[in-house]
Amino acid sequence: MKLSGDDIIARCRHIARFSESATETTRTFLCPAMHDVHRYLGEWMGSLHMDVRVDAMGNLRGLHPGSRGGGRRLLIGSHLDTVPNAGAFDGILGVVLGIALVQSLEGERLPFPIEIIGFSEEEGVRFGVPFLGSRALIGRVDDQLLSTTDQNGVSVYEAIRQFGLNPTHIGEACADPGVLAYLEFHIEQGPVLEHLDQPLAVVQAIAGQSRYAVNVTGSASHAGTTPMNLRKDALAGMAEWITVVEADAKQVNGLVSTVAAVHSEPRAGNVVPAQVTASLDVRHAADEVRRAAAKRLLHSGASIAERRGLKFHAEVRLEQATVQMDPDLVGMAQRALQNIGCEGRLLTSGAGHDAMVIAEKVPSVMIFLRNPGGISHHPDESVLRGDVDLALSALLNILKQFASQVS
Amino acid sequence: MKLSGDDIIARCRHIARFSESATETTRTFLCPAMHDVHRYLGEWMGSLHMDVRVDAMGNLRGLHPGSRGGGRRLLIGSHLDTVPNAGAFDGILGVVLGIALVQSLEGERLPFPIEIIGFSEEEGVRFGVPFLGSRALIGRVDDQLLSTTDQNGVSVYEAIRQFGLNPTHIGEACADPGVLAYLEFHIEQGPVLEHLDQPLAVVQAIAGQSRYAVNVTGSASHAGTTPMNLRKDALAGMAEWITVVEADAKQVNGLVSTVAAVHSEPRAGNVVPAQVTASLDVRHAADEVRRAAAKRLLHSGASIAERRGLKFHAEVRLEQATVQMDPDLVGMAQRALQNIGCEGRLLTSGAGHDAMVIAEKVPSVMIFLRNPGGISHHPDESVLRGDVDLALSALLNILKQFASQVS
Repeated sequence: MKLSGDDIIARCRHIARFSESATETTRTFLCPAMHDVHRYLGEWMGSLHMDVRVDAMGNLRGLHPGSRGGGRRLLIGSHLDTVPNAGAFDGILGVVLGIALVQSLEGERLPFPIEIIGFSEEEGVRFGVPFLGSRALIGRVDDQLLSTTDQNGVSVYEAIRQFGLNPTHIGEACADPGVLAYLEFHIEQGPVLEHLDQPLAVVQAIAGQSRYAVNVTGSASHAGTTPMNLRKDALAGMAEWITVVEADAKQVNGLVSTVAAVHSEPRAGNVVPAQVTASLDVRHAADEVRRAAAKRLLHSGASIAERRGLKFHAEVRLEQATVQMDPDLVGMAQRALQNIGCEGRLLTSGAGHDAMVIAEKVPSVMIFLRNPGGISHHPDESVLRGDVDLALSALLNILKQFASQVS
Repeated sequence: MKLSGDDIIARCRHIARFSESATETTRTFLCPAMHDVHRYLGEWMGSLHMDVRVDAMGNLRGLHPGSRGGGRRLLIGSHLDTVPNAGAFDGILGVVLGIALVQSLEGERLPFPIEIIGFSEEEGVRFGVPFLGSRALIGRVDDQLLSTTDQNGVSVYEAIRQFGLNPTHIGEACADPGVLAYLEFHIEQGPVLEHLDQPLAVVQAIAGQSRYAVNVTGSASHAGTTPMNLRKDALAGMAEWITVVEADAKQVNGLVSTVAAVHSEPRAGNVVPAQVTASLDVRHAADEVRRAAAKRLLHSGASIAERRGLKFHAEVRLEQATVQMDPDLVGMAQRALQNIGCEGRLLTSGAGHDAMVIAEKVPSVMIFLRNPGGISHHPDESVLRGDVDLALSALLNILKQFASQVS
């Protein structure tokens, strides 16, 4: 029985209630609420006779076997985690669409197995490092990553253990070398499709990104007795730098540079701030533009700090080149969109996605769904019922093309 | 037996170990560690046969009775709380000096009682509102103050209850109308005495201060897909304002304006910040200069926010006029300093102190101790042994002057 767009949206909204918070949707890497997501989606996949497991990185995986034993798998997925105070569709929609696709097969077996994957982590919220789930899939998890700690000092390794999984088995999360392809459906998280009046588009590339953890250190002193010219105010230095970051990005077409997650210490209004932490996120479709911008901004941070007698420290958290999607798959996805009556436009994604990591090892493609108002990472995030219907049709169409290729 | 400067310093350093934190000195309003301070100082005062009690605002009070029953009390005190990651002398030194004074009397009774007060709260850290202890002493605690909440949503009222005290008895913390005087010894928390090469000075006025809780609200959006010109970035707006606050203060002689305790939400590097909170602290010896500066800064915050499509909200947390110390007491303190061989210089305090609040009802004076490097609100805060010896001598000299006046 094929699910309607309404059914799929309702399932996403149901899952949004599984949260770390009573009042909003926040689901970071292997938080307790992730057990609820696994149970809910696991039971659904079980009812479709799929083989369900949770791998050692906490990725939820359900296998719909092919008509012959074994065979090269088609992977369909997206991520289960969210940013704080999130909407109901970023990530999860791609997983629910994949399972809905299997349900619409009504038990039919294709010449290849289909594996649905709900990745445990893509947003980078808990550890400041994104893509933990998809990194495990391509075998890019090392000891440094496992020993990265969250703000409570809990390491990735320990978080996996606390969730009831065995981090020494992470190698088994790796996909087989002979994977057919990776397909990811995701909301656009931007306003372009709405402006083009298109429900769907094919992603041909994902813009590169550079992310840093930034730390400015000065010296605490009394706010009432320290003259302005004798201060080493870490916050004043950070503020000057933030205004430079914003002004710089406004001067380069297509460049987006964001300082976020700022926190100053000590937490007292009558003490000149001694330390400020923040994040820096720089993105552009052209790698050389992005790299030059990041270099410029770090240099400016260091020189502002030097002039003020402060210390500026930036640590790379992510350095990701622009990634091209697989040209054959882009063509196949474009045909699928045209077959169901869409224009089949090609876009570059400004947001990073699991497909960006997976494309290193597996031919990958993404399809974006229109995102009303471009509102994402926010409770008002939405999708249109009819667009979700079309997304499922597009997915079925791609499946048919694969079936005719493989058989 | 008169305590030496070394003994007094050692007692302050011992008390610095009573903390909310295992690694630094942090003691906010009625935190559990305050029980340890009460016990330590209470036992010491008990051994000197003083009547010891903790009033309903958590102020520790010890009475050394006068030679006749009753009589107008001489109050000597300072505060027991600290900023986060504090030094060992801010506040507590004035309390320890007061008890050391009683000890040096060796049981002798003067024509008036002496009450030592260790105020529960002066720094304003936990609730963003300072002087909770001294406000209770002059009967300036209202329901609004009691219902102010800390960052965990605990009210002042509830915090008092949780500490084991009865907030409905706060009226009993009030000083009698006929108090003789209030004396407060405190480290300077600035570099002036060091530059003058003087161990002690008399405070003739305490500079006024305006403090605000500031909130800038924008709109969360995806850091990778929201073009710079379509953002409502609360942090970028806050940063622009912080640079204005700093530049403004640098242009007015004697003005100090501080933005601190900044925190942005959400806590994710890939989301444009939707909300930033901070504190603003503005001080100047002249009330009209301070008020004009605060007005200018709030206006500039609002206009920056308006231009950026953000909301800027500032809530007054403290509005305190410059306070003159009692002229007779200033003269008496100046004579005491000259009697022990100091110059008896007069200063204006840039920092707020309990005496600022108490002076409204009780004739008050403060004496500052030299503060090496002007370093305060920092673990490196220090005092010189010889200066502490002189402070105790000055306190004894003031006591003699009172005794000759009253008898």
